[in-house]
Amino acid sequence: MDHEMNYAAEEVQEMLNEKRYRELKAIFAAMEPADIAIIFEDIPDKLIPLVYRILPKDMAAEVFVEMDNDQQEMLIAGFSDQELKEVLDELYVDDAVDIIEEMPASVVKRMLKQTDPETRRQINEILKYPDDSAGSLMTIEYLSLKADMTVSEAFVRIRRIGEDKETINVLYVTDKDRHLIGVLSIRNLLLADPDDVIRDIMETNITAVTTLTDKEEVAQQLSRYDYLAMPVVDQEHRLVGIVTVDDAMDVLQEENTEDIEMLAGITPTDKPYIKTGILETYKKRIPWLLILMISATFTGAIITRYETALGAYVILTAFMPMLMSAGGNAGSQSSVSIIRGLALDEIDYSDTFRILLKEFTVGAICGITLAVANFAKLMLFDRLPVDVAIVICAALMLTIIAAKLIGCSLPILAKRLGFDPAVMANPFITTLVDAISLIVYFKIATIILHI
Amino acid sequence: MDHEMNYAAEEVQEMLNEKRYRELKAIFAAMEPADIAIIFEDIPDKLIPLVYRILPKDMAAEVFVEMDNDQQEMLIAGFSDQELKEVLDELYVDDAVDIIEEMPASVVKRMLKQTDPETRRQINEILKYPDDSAGSLMTIEYLSLKADMTVSEAFVRIRRIGEDKETINVLYVTDKDRHLIGVLSIRNLLLADPDDVIRDIMETNITAVTTLTDKEEVAQQLSRYDYLAMPVVDQEHRLVGIVTVDDAMDVLQEENTEDIEMLAGITPTDKPYIKTGILETYKKRIPWLLILMISATFTGAIITRYETALGAYVILTAFMPMLMSAGGNAGSQSSVSIIRGLALDEIDYSDTFRILLKEFTVGAICGITLAVANFAKLMLFDRLPVDVAIVICAALMLTIIAAKLIGCSLPILAKRLGFDPAVMANPFITTLVDAISLIVYFKIATIILHI
Repeated sequence: MDHEMNYAAEEVQEMLNEKRYRELKAIFAAMEPADIAIIFEDIPDKLIPLVYRILPKDMAAEVFVEMDNDQQEMLIAGFSDQELKEVLDELYVDDAVDIIEEMPASVVKRMLKQTDPETRRQINEILKYPDDSAGSLMTIEYLSLKADMTVSEAFVRIRRIGEDKETINVLYVTDKDRHLIGVLSIRNLLLADPDDVIRDIMETNITAVTTLTDKEEVAQQLSRYDYLAMPVVDQEHRLVGIVTVDDAMDVLQEENTEDIEMLAGITPTDKPYIKTGILETYKKRIPWLLILMISATFTGAIITRYETALGAYVILTAFMPMLMSAGGNAGSQSSVSIIRGLALDEIDYSDTFRILLKEFTVGAICGITLAVANFAKLMLFDRLPVDVAIVICAALMLTIIAAKLIGCSLPILAKRLGFDPAVMANPFITTLVDAISLIVYFKIATIILHI
Repeated sequence: MDHEMNYAAEEVQEMLNEKRYRELKAIFAAMEPADIAIIFEDIPDKLIPLVYRILPKDMAAEVFVEMDNDQQEMLIAGFSDQELKEVLDELYVDDAVDIIEEMPASVVKRMLKQTDPETRRQINEILKYPDDSAGSLMTIEYLSLKADMTVSEAFVRIRRIGEDKETINVLYVTDKDRHLIGVLSIRNLLLADPDDVIRDIMETNITAVTTLTDKEEVAQQLSRYDYLAMPVVDQEHRLVGIVTVDDAMDVLQEENTEDIEMLAGITPTDKPYIKTGILETYKKRIPWLLILMISATFTGAIITRYETALGAYVILTAFMPMLMSAGGNAGSQSSVSIIRGLALDEIDYSDTFRILLKEFTVGAICGITLAVANFAKLMLFDRLPVDVAIVICAALMLTIIAAKLIGCSLPILAKRLGFDPAVMANPFITTLVDAISLIVYFKIATIILHI
């Protein structure tokens, strides 16, 4: 939230205290619903119903949609049945479903009771689809036309029912069995002759997803093709809904947050950081810390095994952290590049060999650069014996190469096995690279230094 | 790129060899331009001009826009002046600018020569804006109306000039000095009465950005408000362009890639991994590896300083990696949460104290959990002396708390100082946490173990 927003929240409270309701209403009327919802976050709970009732009538539902779930639940609890019905009537079905999915059962029951039977049927329909599917993301309020309509008949239909549709920018043409047979934009329609028949001006070369397509895939495709909406069809290619670009954008942002969190060893949730409680934050983080601690036991065991070598050359200890952190970083550079490439659909299994070769080469050049730089430093500044410096630098070079190869192959392997590549990144790669770097280090030390 | 796409590329080559051009044209006609561009990537360079000429006329420019810069440059080199002019005429100005920005000067000169004077003026105008600004991202091909037009006059105008505009879904109302005074959607227009005057039905409560607004900020706002386009105004609030949702989506994805790369210590570029050459990849990665190596010198120095302690209790060495990796991970969990929160505008300076308190608490609970689990393991499995186990666990707990506090405060500090918070994440936090964890470890060891 912005600084200006916080200020606005204080202003709102002041106006409330001074009962300047009319003025407040005018201010709200000039704002974006999303920004009003942000102000609501900073208003004490007991004032929320009052402020909500000050909102201009035609904005109330839009602000409601943008609010966080706790505040929605609280407001619903305070609504009369009539008020609840008014809000529900204003919501698009997909927004209603999003809210229902987050509410406790008792609230859901009350909400469903206030919707008309047709909407209730539609809501239940969408609720059936898996959480991450196009079906759960889509809206059913698209505008469909028939192929034998003329352009002017189409306009009549748009004027008649366009108000209740989530978008009229893209129009879908279906046959009598609701199969999707064409697409056209409102622009096509406006630029066509009134007597043209839809069949002749529609685009028949249609990209669509099914209700079960993963929602991230839907969002990626929509973004790649620069669509404003993506049609969703069932197994029989009947049009059942559309995913609009604004929802696709939200999906992309959520998936990005998820990937970034996984890269850092955090169990992803869809709640923003600032709204996650202490216990919840703890639960998102502690599993990975525990796993990493346990896996660090391996490195401990390796060190213990080479205790004699370390006893003879205590100086070797001083360079362990450098070696491990260089390896860890080199590995995460590779893994993150690959994970992102996979997420953006730029990389594919058929590229595996090419990637391994590239990472090996990059690793070798990086390794040599670091080894040379480090050797110079060890000789000039630390004034180490040459043989010790050689041990450190040789281990450094091999560690970097190994780290790059592990870093690039584990995410691809993870995807192949059906896991999210991002989950592989941090803990597993770190552990593996740490262990390998230490083994290489000590092996080279025992050979060169004759320990 | 998908597996199916690769297959298609082979098919295309086969058809080329067998001169089945007509068939190929039909296949292209049924595809998305973005997918055709992906196929082009796998076609040998010398065949590109041939394949390009097979494309259906009305698709050629769209495919051209989606191709990578090297292929665009090659194609332009092969174009006759007439062909080049045909492509340029089909391009939207913002796409033309994107391409021009990536071409060498000689190609730019040739391109500008083939555009008409008005377009050339517009291109030069956009080229003036800073790279990351709304001005460089916007298109100037928006559709504007006058406030005193009637709805039916507006439709006449849309039908007349709508074809050349990048979007007609959102329409902008300007006064005689081009000031932005209203916005309306094509839906508003369609649902209005033909005799209604634009002034009476337009939305006057407008959110706009200026030409110098950072493009990431533009994309975030557009996404937050679920807009299809964001108007861009100059300092005098004159409308100069719009940013469309598809470009905003691309910006968000690029910024996400940038953040993820920075988190992993990679210098960000806007080139996909698979298209980045070995030398370029090396250049993106080596600086951070070098910086980290140098900063690891500090940890080395700390270890050397406590050589005596380590000589007396070699067992302490075995737990150094565990301590450092736990600290590093705890720190990156915090920093990544904060960096993401800042990027999504969920967090703000005014939250700093709240964040510090939360991270301290979460750090304390995580630290205690890890310390207890570790203590049990050290006593039961490793059978360490109690005093050594206490040293390790106390250091572990304090390290986690310190790591959480450093991890959350550095990104906020970075933002305050005007840097990208993501750049702070990995190298600096790791170095700081490593150093602190070692100092804490050895300090506690010297006290408890009386070394």
